[in-house]
Amino acid sequence: MFEKITIIGCGLIGSSILRNINNNEISKSLTVFDKSKNVLETIKKENLCSNVSKDIQSAVKDSDLIILAIPLSSYKEVLLSTKDIFKKDAIITDTGSVKKEVNKIFENFNLTNISWIASHPIAGTEESGPSAGFKDLFKNRWTIICESKNSNKDKIEKLKKFWEFLGSNVKLMSIDEHDQILALTSHLPHAVAYNIVKTAISTDEKFRNEIIKYSAGGLRDFTRIASSDPLMWRDIFIDNSENIIKILDEFSKNIDDFKKAINEKNSDKLLKIFASTKNVRKEIIKAGQDVESPDFGRKKN
Amino acid sequence: MFEKITIIGCGLIGSSILRNINNNEISKSLTVFDKSKNVLETIKKENLCSNVSKDIQSAVKDSDLIILAIPLSSYKEVLLSTKDIFKKDAIITDTGSVKKEVNKIFENFNLTNISWIASHPIAGTEESGPSAGFKDLFKNRWTIICESKNSNKDKIEKLKKFWEFLGSNVKLMSIDEHDQILALTSHLPHAVAYNIVKTAISTDEKFRNEIIKYSAGGLRDFTRIASSDPLMWRDIFIDNSENIIKILDEFSKNIDDFKKAINEKNSDKLLKIFASTKNVRKEIIKAGQDVESPDFGRKKN
Repeated sequence: MFEKITIIGCGLIGSSILRNINNNEISKSLTVFDKSKNVLETIKKENLCSNVSKDIQSAVKDSDLIILAIPLSSYKEVLLSTKDIFKKDAIITDTGSVKKEVNKIFENFNLTNISWIASHPIAGTEESGPSAGFKDLFKNRWTIICESKNSNKDKIEKLKKFWEFLGSNVKLMSIDEHDQILALTSHLPHAVAYNIVKTAISTDEKFRNEIIKYSAGGLRDFTRIASSDPLMWRDIFIDNSENIIKILDEFSKNIDDFKKAINEKNSDKLLKIFASTKNVRKEIIKAGQDVESPDFGRKKN
Repeated sequence: MFEKITIIGCGLIGSSILRNINNNEISKSLTVFDKSKNVLETIKKENLCSNVSKDIQSAVKDSDLIILAIPLSSYKEVLLSTKDIFKKDAIITDTGSVKKEVNKIFENFNLTNISWIASHPIAGTEESGPSAGFKDLFKNRWTIICESKNSNKDKIEKLKKFWEFLGSNVKLMSIDEHDQILALTSHLPHAVAYNIVKTAISTDEKFRNEIIKYSAGGLRDFTRIASSDPLMWRDIFIDNSENIIKILDEFSKNIDDFKKAINEKNSDKLLKIFASTKNVRKEIIKAGQDVESPDFGRKKN
């Protein structure tokens, strides 16, 4: 399918791609670059790739598919040092969670001899780093692909097949649509999780120990989400701030309504909210995006 | 330890107690009452208890320990029909998530010949009903016990031993403290989860299918929490409205701060929030209230 694939950035996502396409027939050669010494040591120790580049230019050279699995705030720096090295007609893709701002960076570089096609595999855990990656991370998950000015149908089809090869379902959509939908399904929940945990620990400092102790009543599951990679999430919130602020405004209105309902002991209104949210869960399970009874790693028996 | 234990209400919590103390030496006899025909059928079908009472009075008669595992809004009705039947010196306890309002109900009945001692096992799943219960639900979880006017040390010690027998750690605290702490660790996360899901599905009706499809980015975990038993949660929010509204006000302030930070691209402020919430998670894992990598029922391999 490819002569050479290059993965730039070997954290949770990059290393999961690596673990999946290692030792198989999707590409004749496979090269990895990461600027972190710790990451490179892990790659060696876990024997994840025999071809680790010392500099980003040789990693990218002659590559047909270059995957940026790096923080959104690093794209510009990476493109600055690689833009003149890209092979003609190479596909450059990424795995980032927001598209509008990084697409602007690509447009400003005006790289006419390559195909920039954004990808976003909707997969991940709260962990980060190469040791957290696993082969089947993308299995049965969705990957969203967004066209750009200089992508063509053949290249999109090729990239689609790549993600399908990793086990993913693929959906094409516009950059605007992607950033709006992800603001709802991912950025809103994360923003709120950080703020719940912040509220719980700062409201009553005297209760801090108690809050840790009795967190099994709900809070602990939010702390899991609120322990995701800080740098990654800083970049997401800043890059998608416009959509997120709009949704947080809606959310705050709903919270105010909710306060009113419990203050007025409005049973009907509360039950109506709960019924509608219960239905969404049923639809998610039906769509294969969750199991009936996830055990959260806390086995019943 | 007891001559007769009675469990009133055999849903997730009641049936888990039942499954645990069935066929062992904690009590000579064990009786169950539930007003739902469906629940009674499940108890029979799953062979959970040989002694199912047809009326609540005979269930309670001669019992040394009566456990109310019913919605908060049913306490009054249950007490109305049982208050004259209680054995002298019996312990009446419960499993409810809010204490102040139900304690008022007990105080109004002025039952001087029994010991009312509130219990709250901090354990549960998003499921409800007797089939969802399991024997080890309370294992390594905390149970909070709150004294009342007419409880004495011996009775509290006896009830403490009962919960320890179920595998629970026990902590005594005041009713006020309980309701404040639970508002933070459980009621706030649930209130927010309902409102996140509501916001996600109502902001853009046109995106509904997309939101279901791409929910794996965070939303699905909130839909799990937001699918907990609606009646139970209506009662909790109404009974603890004062504490919850106070905390939701704090939470809204934090959300506003957060919006400001992402609007101003204030990297330092965002990273400071994320670092503090990451630390809370470490403390929770250290306190044995979660595992390092809960897999949420979604196996890696």
